[in-house]
Amino acid sequence: MEKPYVVGVDMGGTNTKFGIVDARGHVLNSSSIKTQQYTDINEYCDVLCSEMMKLVNVHGGIDLIRGVGAGAPNANYYTGNIENAANLPWKGIVPFAQMISDRMGVPCRITNDANAAAMGEMTYGVAKGMKNFIMITLGTGVGSGIVIDGKVVYGHDGFAGELGHTKIIRDASARLCGCGQKGCIEAYASANGVARTAQEWVTTTDKPSLLRDIPTESITSKDVFDAAMKGDEMAREIFDYTGTLLGQKLADFIAFSAPEAIVLFGGLTKAGDILLQPIVKAMNENVVRFWKDKVRVLFSSLKDADAAILGASALVWDVDAQAPMTV
Amino acid sequence: MEKPYVVGVDMGGTNTKFGIVDARGHVLNSSSIKTQQYTDINEYCDVLCSEMMKLVNVHGGIDLIRGVGAGAPNANYYTGNIENAANLPWKGIVPFAQMISDRMGVPCRITNDANAAAMGEMTYGVAKGMKNFIMITLGTGVGSGIVIDGKVVYGHDGFAGELGHTKIIRDASARLCGCGQKGCIEAYASANGVARTAQEWVTTTDKPSLLRDIPTESITSKDVFDAAMKGDEMAREIFDYTGTLLGQKLADFIAFSAPEAIVLFGGLTKAGDILLQPIVKAMNENVVRFWKDKVRVLFSSLKDADAAILGASALVWDVDAQAPMTV
Repeated sequence: MEKPYVVGVDMGGTNTKFGIVDARGHVLNSSSIKTQQYTDINEYCDVLCSEMMKLVNVHGGIDLIRGVGAGAPNANYYTGNIENAANLPWKGIVPFAQMISDRMGVPCRITNDANAAAMGEMTYGVAKGMKNFIMITLGTGVGSGIVIDGKVVYGHDGFAGELGHTKIIRDASARLCGCGQKGCIEAYASANGVARTAQEWVTTTDKPSLLRDIPTESITSKDVFDAAMKGDEMAREIFDYTGTLLGQKLADFIAFSAPEAIVLFGGLTKAGDILLQPIVKAMNENVVRFWKDKVRVLFSSLKDADAAILGASALVWDVDAQAPMTV
Repeated sequence: MEKPYVVGVDMGGTNTKFGIVDARGHVLNSSSIKTQQYTDINEYCDVLCSEMMKLVNVHGGIDLIRGVGAGAPNANYYTGNIENAANLPWKGIVPFAQMISDRMGVPCRITNDANAAAMGEMTYGVAKGMKNFIMITLGTGVGSGIVIDGKVVYGHDGFAGELGHTKIIRDASARLCGCGQKGCIEAYASANGVARTAQEWVTTTDKPSLLRDIPTESITSKDVFDAAMKGDEMAREIFDYTGTLLGQKLADFIAFSAPEAIVLFGGLTKAGDILLQPIVKAMNENVVRFWKDKVRVLFSSLKDADAAILGASALVWDVDAQAPMTV
């Protein structure tokens, strides 16, 4: 019998979420542990696997599990290692996929969260049936997963698709990005970027705004969204600015891989049309003429709570995958 | 018997060159016709095929020919059509691959010149054995061919890889590019771009230079190169500026597909180290830290005169090709 389920794992700096997923993208059950609580990677893997087994046993045991797919920071798809992740407790090279399959007795494959999101969208979401699209995740940072001919692009070393760290501003005013470079799109089009824009504008302009009622240093992207929903003009201009910069970069990305669509995912997409409209406008104003008005910009159709687990789980269903699974 | 030869065709706006090529990348013989002389595409194909047959017959006849590969402006790899090429005499959609195979009785496959160059480099040149690299052609314009997992990227519509039209300057000073957009890297890092930089600098600065001995409007990239070779400071600064802008964009391209190398081809590469050094410096200063000093920048190893024919011929040897060949 074909094994009917997979386990998806979404490892973040704070929490690690995991769940059992069927081939149609239903998350049958899920749970989580605190990532930061385990300074020893062996202990972390022991607890994670024992918690996963509890879920697995509710659904017929490990014999029904095809494998484990995990999204994790700095995950190397080719090797199954997590390499020098800045926001995880374990330093150096961690052979995570092997450690999981050793404990679970089933294959494991890993990738970073944006690539997992792309796999999830292609397997269960709005990109189902698409062979060429680009996934952009707009969360704390800006991540990307590029799909060409139905496959996620990993490149020579497994780390392709770092579009958040391509440059949008190259002059002296360019913001410092968390990566150490200046002017990356991540420093503008992430949740942090929106907050920074608000903090800058409140400081450097006289324009009235609801945002001025909040202590400047603590303005968040959520505050900007809330103000925009109340009709605050500066807040709307911040989304306009953010979307315009992102749209300009999307035009560059289209020139690379000629995608059918660009799929946006993450907290910032909750802004909806006030973000989408300037993105689409700037993208079409900056793209080579034969792609003008041809490339769709879509929001993810996956539920926020499930998306990361679904994306990771999709790694296991991928029969054409370029990387071997550990056993 | 395995057919030992292919025909490579390099269709340019002025000349169409073609030759017989063996599997090791030797151009056995070659010839050319004037592209612009034939306003009727049928007449052009008749003459081209009859001239190709002359070469073919010198080497044992059509039974030894595996197929025809052609590089042409606006060639659609998927359909075999040339679509709305601005610098060719034939308007609209031309079913070029079909027209050639109808006349020759062998399969034909086409692509644009930069993708053909990438195929040539991978099949016969410095990228032999590489699975992930980016080809940048620095000629009159800036073209690109992106190879991922051993395959040229064509994208959803067949036109992927237009990196010459990604933006390097986004402020009011951005140059108008031939594509109608402003600030494209093609407007700076092409032979035309170098000439424009020289013309601007001669006009807007007081710096002494050998370039001032030439009527401003007629300064070419070759003049800048010649002056640089004589130690002219402004000419060297122009190559420094050109290389720096291109290197900044290469850093963006690396973030996309994580290539093993970037291969540069075309007239501008004759400048050698005075172009290469600023490219490599700017690339490594602008790339995400884990790619710093990791990606090689190489000049093409193919002879200029043969490269385009070789590249086009490589299309026919590509057994994994995504596009069908016409028959």
